[in-house]
Order: sequence, then C-alpha cells, then structure tokens
Amino acid sequence: MTPAAAAQALEEITQTLPAEILVTDPVSMEAYRFDRAQDPDAGMPLVVVRPHTTEQVQQLVRIAAAHRVPIVPRGAGTGLSGGSTAVEQGILLSLDRMNAIEVDPVTRTVVAGPGALNAEVKAAAAAHGLWYPPDPSSFEICSIGGNVATNAGGLCCVKYGVTTDYVLGMTVVLADGRAVRLGGPRLKDVAGLSLTKLFVGSEGALGIFTEVQLRLIPAQKLPTTLVATFPTLASATEAVLTITGQMRPSMLEFMDQATINAVEDATKMGLDRQAAAMLIVQSDEPAGAALDEIRRIEEICTSTGATECFATDDPDDGEAFVTARRMAIPAIERQGAVLLEDVGVPLPRLGDLVLGIAQIAEAHDVTIATMAHAGDGNTHPLIVLRKSDPAQQERAHRAYGEVMDLAIRLGGTITGEHGVGRLKRPWLGDYLGPDVLELNHRIKKALDPGGILNPGAILVPEESDS
Amino acid sequence: MTPAAAAQALEEITQTLPAEILVTDPVSMEAYRFDRAQDPDAGMPLVVVRPHTTEQVQQLVRIAAAHRVPIVPRGAGTGLSGGSTAVEQGILLSLDRMNAIEVDPVTRTVVAGPGALNAEVKAAAAAHGLWYPPDPSSFEICSIGGNVATNAGGLCCVKYGVTTDYVLGMTVVLADGRAVRLGGPRLKDVAGLSLTKLFVGSEGALGIFTEVQLRLIPAQKLPTTLVATFPTLASATEAVLTITGQMRPSMLEFMDQATINAVEDATKMGLDRQAAAMLIVQSDEPAGAALDEIRRIEEICTSTGATECFATDDPDDGEAFVTARRMAIPAIERQGAVLLEDVGVPLPRLGDLVLGIAQIAEAHDVTIATMAHAGDGNTHPLIVLRKSDPAQQERAHRAYGEVMDLAIRLGGTITGEHGVGRLKRPWLGDYLGPDVLELNHRIKKALDPGGILNPGAILVPEESDS
Repeated sequence: MTPAAAAQALEEITQTLPAEILVTDPVSMEAYRFDRAQDPDAGMPLVVVRPHTTEQVQQLVRIAAAHRVPIVPRGAGTGLSGGSTAVEQGILLSLDRMNAIEVDPVTRTVVAGPGALNAEVKAAAAAHGLWYPPDPSSFEICSIGGNVATNAGGLCCVKYGVTTDYVLGMTVVLADGRAVRLGGPRLKDVAGLSLTKLFVGSEGALGIFTEVQLRLIPAQKLPTTLVATFPTLASATEAVLTITGQMRPSMLEFMDQATINAVEDATKMGLDRQAAAMLIVQSDEPAGAALDEIRRIEEICTSTGATECFATDDPDDGEAFVTARRMAIPAIERQGAVLLEDVGVPLPRLGDLVLGIAQIAEAHDVTIATMAHAGDGNTHPLIVLRKSDPAQQERAHRAYGEVMDLAIRLGGTITGEHGVGRLKRPWLGDYLGPDVLELNHRIKKALDPGGILNPGAILVPEESDS
Repeated sequence: MTPAAAAQALEEITQTLPAEILVTDPVSMEAYRFDRAQDPDAGMPLVVVRPHTTEQVQQLVRIAAAHRVPIVPRGAGTGLSGGSTAVEQGILLSLDRMNAIEVDPVTRTVVAGPGALNAEVKAAAAAHGLWYPPDPSSFEICSIGGNVATNAGGLCCVKYGVTTDYVLGMTVVLADGRAVRLGGPRLKDVAGLSLTKLFVGSEGALGIFTEVQLRLIPAQKLPTTLVATFPTLASATEAVLTITGQMRPSMLEFMDQATINAVEDATKMGLDRQAAAMLIVQSDEPAGAALDEIRRIEEICTSTGATECFATDDPDDGEAFVTARRMAIPAIERQGAVLLEDVGVPLPRLGDLVLGIAQIAEAHDVTIATMAHAGDGNTHPLIVLRKSDPAQQERAHRAYGEVMDLAIRLGGTITGEHGVGRLKRPWLGDYLGPDVLELNHRIKKALDPGGILNPGAILVPEESDS
C-alpha cells in the first residue's frame, strides 16, 4: 500500500460512509490502537470505523480491497494476543456498535452482533431460561465477535466445550466485500464444506463476522462447589488427572501459590497462603447427583494429599471462589505489567508443565504465577515484569518463550484459547511444523488473496498478488 | 486423465505397493463400486487399494497426483449420498483395514483408524467406562472415517451434538501425498486456522484421513424412556417444539404412520397402526432427575393431544423401542428400493416440513414414510420405488427433488447428516447460493488443485490446472 493509495481510500471512505461512524483525530484513535496485549509495535490507523450495519462493513471492505488497505477488525479490545493491534495506516474496524441480540427460544439459538458482550448474550439467553455456556474470565467485558474470532474458551469448557461447539452460523463479509450467510439455526447441516467452523478462530484473517448465530442450552443447574488445597503441585495435578479420568465436573480450576497469594492480597477472603496449589471444582448435576459427585471428588483430593477440603452447595459461597479465580489475572496485574501465557498440554502432561514452569521461573529469577483451566490442560502462567528493570524484563521475555517451547515439547499447544494474534506468531511455525503452516497460508490466500484482512495476525503476511 | 496415464499409474502402483493390498479383477472390484446409495452411474475402478498404513496411502496418492488419477476414499461403504461411488478408471481407496483403536482414558480420547466401525469405537471406549456419543442408526456397520468425512449425526445429537463436536485431531494425507497431523488430545487449541474442523465433513474431497482422534465422555447413564402416540402430525410436532424449548432429552425421535406400520410389519411389537405419529423420547439424567424429566415430557405430550403414553425406566424395554426406530429404514426397504432423504429445518418449521412432505406424497401418488431426529429438525423421508413401474419411479424422483426444494424454502438444509455426495450435488447450489458455492470451490482448489480427491463428491469437478 502506498501513501497515495491510503489517502485515496480515506477520501472514498469519507465520501461513502456517514461521518458519525468515522474517527480520524489521533487523540480519539489512540484508544483503538491497542488491545489488552498492549503491543508496543501498534501502528497509527488511517481511520477508525464504527459501523452499524453489514452494508457499511461491505462498503468499507470494497474500498479497502480496491486500494489494498489493510483492515483490522476489533470487538471489545480485550484480546490478549495482539490480534486487534492497529496496523500503521490501516483501517481499524471497531464492531462495538453492532451489538444487537435476538434470542429464539424455540430453536434455542441466539443471533448476536459481533459487538455484543458475552455477558449480554448470557443475560439475554437467561431471560428465556436458556444458557450460552462459553465463559472466558473476561466474559463481562469481551465481545462475542472476538470470542468467535478466537474460538474462546473459559472455565466451563471442561464439561461444555469451547466457542466453536456453539457456533451454528454467521454472516461474514469476505475480502472482496461480498457478504455471505453460513450455516443457520440447525443443529445438523452437512451441505457443503464446514466453512462456519473454518471461520471460527480465524482471528479476522479470513473474513469479518457481522452477525453470529449461537446454540443455547437449558439453564445450568445451581452448582455445588469444592475447594481443595494441596501441599505440592504434584499432588494437585494428580488429583486433576484422577478426577477427569472418571467424571466430568462443570469446572476444574487450578491456582498455584503465587496466584493464591495475589488473590488473597486483593480479596482478604482467607485463602491458605502456604498451600502450593488450590483446586476449585464444581458440579452442576441435578441436586443429589451433584453432591455425590463432589463427595467423590473430595475423596480423590484427600487421597492425593489435599490438606484441606471445603464443600458447599450454597451457590453464593461457591461463586465467591469462582470470582476469586476470575480475578486472578487482575490481581497479578497489581504487581506490575505481565506477560500472559496460554499454553495447554494433553492432561497427563499437566504436572510436567506446571513443574517445568516453576523451574523456568527459578532459572530466570522471575515470578511466574500459574493459574489453569486444569480440567482441559490449559494453563495461564503470568510472568510479572518489573517496569524499571530492563534486565529483569529481558529474563521475563526469555522465560515467556521457554514456556511455549516447553509446552511444544510436552505435546502441547502455544495457545489454548487466546489466539495467536501477533504476539504468538513467532512460535506458530515451531508448533504446527512447515506443512501445516503452509496449509494455513493456502487457506488464507484462497479467501484473502490481496492479504488485506488483519495482516500479520496468525500468519506472517505473504507477498501480495499485485 | 488419459488412458495412458491410467495405465502408467496402475503400473507404478503395482510396482510400489504390495500385491496383497491391491484388487484388480473386475469381479472382486464390483463390491467396491457402490455405497448404499447404489448410484447407477458408478464407474469401474482402475484398482481397489486396501492399505494398512499411512505410508501406503501416501505412496498411492503421490502416484495418483503425478498422473492425475482420481482417488475415491471409502470407509465401510454405508454412505447414503454416493460419496464413495467409484469413478471410472479411478483409484478406489478402501480404508477398511486401517481399523486400529486405542483409548487413552486419562485424556479421555481415542485414536482410531478410519476403517474402525463406530460400534467398535463405542465398545473400546465402554471398556474404560467412557462413551463416544455420535450414533448414526447404522452405527454397527458404518466406519468412523466415514462418520468424520460426513460429519455424521444420529439419535443422541439432540443433546450430545454431532461428530465434529468430538473430533480433536487427525492425520490427513493431502492431495500431494504429504501427511500432516492436525490437532491432538487437547480440548482447547486455537493455534492456527481451524483446519481439523474444516476437514470434518469434507467427504474425502480435501484429504484422506488415516487416523482420527476423538473426544470421549463418561459413560451415559441408563436412560428412562417415553413412547407417545399422536392422532395428528401437528400434535406430535407441537409436542416436539414444546419439549425442546424447555429441556434437552437425550433422544427425541419421530415416526409417521407409514413408518410405524412398516416397523410393526417387521417387529409385531404391538405398535398402534392407527396413530398418525409416534415419539420416542429418552432422558439420561441421573436417576430421579430422569424420571422427573420424562414425567414433564409426558405431561407435554398429553397436553398437545397424545392418545397414549408409555414410560419405562427399564433400559431393555426402552431399548426395544429405540431398536424399532433404528430398524425403520430397513423395514421400509422391505417394500422396495427407496430414495432416502435427509432434509432438516429449523425446529419451528418441522411441522410445515412434515405436513408438506405428506402433501408431496399425495400430489405425486407415492408412498413417503417419514422418520425424524425430531429434536434437531432432521427428517428422513423415504420414498418407496416400485421397481416395475417406470412412471411411478419418475413421480418418486420428482417428489425427491420437491422435498429438498421444500426444505430450502423453509430455511432448511438439503442434508443434515448424510452428506452431499454425488446424489445431492445438483441441489447444493440452490441451497448455498452462488457465493458460498464459490467459496467451497476456492477451498477445494486451495487444497486439491489437481482435483484428484473424490472428484464429483460435493462439488462439480472444475477444470484442472493442467
């Protein structure tokens, strides 16, 4: 893209789209340059566009395509991998205003604009006695479009699966400005290739969702909760393996000592600061069955060495612990800027991963607080950065890379639920290998031959055709 | 492909692969020409290859790619849409011998060869107290590779989802002979585009699975069963809508009068031949909760006009009705050859679909027996063909097309779980529209530029690059 092309594109955008959806002054645009990954390499956008309709997105994409101007789509800006980082002189497409939500209780589906928040979708479903399960810790502030773009996970996934398991259809604006509808309110539909599922997790690099259609299920039953503390990391991960081999709790979360202490600093709820690890487990089976399940899990925890177990069928008491777990990331962030990891491994390697992370922290003399969606082997090691200490920051970044290398060695993934974005792109090839990486490029090329859709997210931009 | 290229390819195959995996005599090859769709246009293969290993598949594909010889992959040959119909002078790749099954109870996953039968996978999982839910009616004779290739459904999908919801990874041989591993035993993995999900349902047109990795869940609880008969189609479909809006039974099956009578002819189990429709509903909630759920469903059925309801928590009694439902297709087939439909609609249109099908049957003076996975709006109208009556057959084929047209008009799909194959290909464009159809072609072209993988399945073959 040449500066002249950018200027020409901006002029056409200004002529074509209503002024009230355009943001061009640098001060106002500043807020749109970064997502939560705070990528220091973020560019300054040519323009921020905040459309109301699919048609406006199409008009925008047509202009961008004609002049080969990159478009970075953005939901709520809570992404953790830099998938929405602004590209220098590109278009930043904020979908925050496309946030309509319509629930159809008969088909048990919801149609939502990409800018609707996850929590808003949950609330709309709940008004009909229904439930949209996927629950990233940030569910109150993250957008459903971003959730679909990253195939987001959360705490309930151990029993209820991830975002893709709930996506039945979508409207997508393609790289040439055409809009297509994929799928629909049908649980079963095998007519044609699985394009809907391909777009889920594509991080804005294949098309721009302007509407998503999601499957809902009946409201979750009130959970019974168990909190167990462990004297060693190994005893906690052994409990996890024993539990998941036998049953399917609706939540199975892990916090290590650094995380427990950060949460305790923030909440003063009386967590055991000496514990090496803590598990928070829930069962949402019908009444008696939930208590049975939690009792069995308590026995497992005790048998693997838990020092203390606390079970409650009071939903508020249980929710207090879940809230504590959800606030773990902000609690750690009080200690300074953090590098947030998202590595996952096959469950039998969870112990090796958690112990290996502790060793990496020690070797580099950095604090790494590890929390995990333990039931699906997905961990979030948080590496704390000391702002005024460049040497520590260098060690922290080395540790960050080594954690991913460790996950790959253990047969794991470099990202379980946050996405590759721009932050994790350097490790993607190591993880996928050259052949699968090349397949990714082929699909990208097939759907976005000009390379204008979120260039640099997931994949290194290829030379364009022109 | 020229005859010379085919001859050259056959010579290389014979030189490269062991003789014991090759079938070349026409009599033995006859059994491999057709799947259950019995496509009269099936060709005669150049050779049938029955490999044992991924490496043998790779060797075969490399030769096929070099000479542009088509390859049609085949699992157990139970496909209902002609997805495995032999192509004239193409390679028929039967994966029946690649049937190893390995369960890992700790990760709750199974690795299976594509030729393993669905029932064998279920049995292997059950030996560890685990369950592989997807259950096509043909589960005892269909292959897991075919299930993944068609994203197969079944009876449990109303609660447990379809095949894609259980596919975590696979080994795929690509169109150039490279083998890649996608995904793995991780519930969460968002590193790179969702290629695993793209290959699910691709009907052999994008690559050849030589191994699939599936998610398992804890064993299903013994079900409680309700059978309800209705005086009208409308009262039965109203019951379905009321049930699904409130709860999630583990099975919700429908049979119309023609189906009931065919099953009664075959089983003499005492079904009500006068009933316009019958529902078979199961709950697999824990003990007391299942009975509660079935009682609520019974109340709903009674309130919408059911003439008789029979509930049982005896698993064998319940299974007798499920078996009756599963044998509906063979029972109809006793009346003659059938055209088997697989149309699905959004649930609120189920009544319109079922009534509309009855009208199409009457208008064309043909017998259409309709059974349905009612809980997910997926119906199987079976149109009976009278072999010695060409005029009736012509009317039957017209009715077959009109049923698909009706489904499309009602916002439905031309195939819910069987696949497009070759039989339904003429309707795919009407259903998808030109833009989505073109997207399908673009993906196909990106992954199989030479067009050698199952040409004619799903999509009309494009002119190849050469």
